[in-house]
Amino acid sequence: MTPGFDDGFRDRLEELILWRRDVRRFRGDAVDPALIERLIGLACLSPSVGNSQPWRFVLVEAPACRQAVRASFVSCNSDALHDYHGERARVYATLKLSGLDQAPVHLAVFCERGTATGHGLGRRTMPETLDYSVVAAVQTFWLAARAYGLGVGWVSILDPVAVATALDVPDGWALISYLCVGWPEEEHADPELVRHGWQDRLSTPGLISRR
Amino acid sequence: MTPGFDDGFRDRLEELILWRRDVRRFRGDAVDPALIERLIGLACLSPSVGNSQPWRFVLVEAPACRQAVRASFVSCNSDALHDYHGERARVYATLKLSGLDQAPVHLAVFCERGTATGHGLGRRTMPETLDYSVVAAVQTFWLAARAYGLGVGWVSILDPVAVATALDVPDGWALISYLCVGWPEEEHADPELVRHGWQDRLSTPGLISRR
Repeated sequence: MTPGFDDGFRDRLEELILWRRDVRRFRGDAVDPALIERLIGLACLSPSVGNSQPWRFVLVEAPACRQAVRASFVSCNSDALHDYHGERARVYATLKLSGLDQAPVHLAVFCERGTATGHGLGRRTMPETLDYSVVAAVQTFWLAARAYGLGVGWVSILDPVAVATALDVPDGWALISYLCVGWPEEEHADPELVRHGWQDRLSTPGLISRR
Repeated sequence: MTPGFDDGFRDRLEELILWRRDVRRFRGDAVDPALIERLIGLACLSPSVGNSQPWRFVLVEAPACRQAVRASFVSCNSDALHDYHGERARVYATLKLSGLDQAPVHLAVFCERGTATGHGLGRRTMPETLDYSVVAAVQTFWLAARAYGLGVGWVSILDPVAVATALDVPDGWALISYLCVGWPEEEHADPELVRHGWQDRLSTPGLISRR
């Protein structure tokens, strides 16, 4: 039966979107593996080009694997810091940019670029839509996780090839997103990078034009 | 105040995710422009790398612009059909792959790749995360639209450079997504491409591995 959604649901959905957050500070307590699998199941209902469903989820559990990812982050973050100077470098150095050390769940999300699923439909002229399908799944996972009170942080300060190698994934799997997941230590309505003076929000009307 | 979400909300959210759909069949009646702006405002609360907010929304209204987009679709779709043979070509030709002719709202979503917003944070080693931020915004828009009963269809069978040229957007804006938006003619819990025998859903457990 077709669901109908009411104003009460829409108000809560808007709160969910507003309070989603990129979380980098986690409590140490475990997350039920069944909940993670449920959230991945919801993510798999996301749109994908030609119904290609190219998302591949890797739960990173082995200490050696996590250490390799952390090492990539440390190296890439150190390189990044050298791109900034003066006050901006000072602020950059104070930012907490990942929860890799504390998050009880590490979830690497790959795109199987060679997948035959979907028979190539819809991606002849925009092959990048295969990767985009995986991003849509990540955003679905993120919102659904938030509805359970879980926090999610996307770590992009990584060498994607080094991570794929460390995790020994099949050839042709490209890292799209590395997620830290766990119960958040604190709650905020505003983004970390706004709160710490790195980058304010833009005004929406300025982002809309007409042709 | 921090929102808490309950089981009732989560059940409805799961329905929303399950019933989202890529819609290609629209009724002709108009959509309130204020609703579209509200949905874009929600999309702008999506995660973006370094809080770069690179999403740029273009409402495509002029008949000449819509005609140029439609012409790109027709040409790209004809080329795509020639990639298939036999039974698959026959099925491809029967699929409805866009709602460009009927959708009352056309929304082109671009990434401003040269944006200084966010000061480059987080995208040194994975610059593609700038594009991914725009995809996250599209998925947020899509889910929020669905909560209002609106249908959204993502058209990827387009030449992205031709579309950017036809819409005369600033240099450095890359087309990420072209969306048809309107009130759906029909409702389905399963994807169009499943229903028409193009591609079934995969089983989620097979998409999860551990390291």
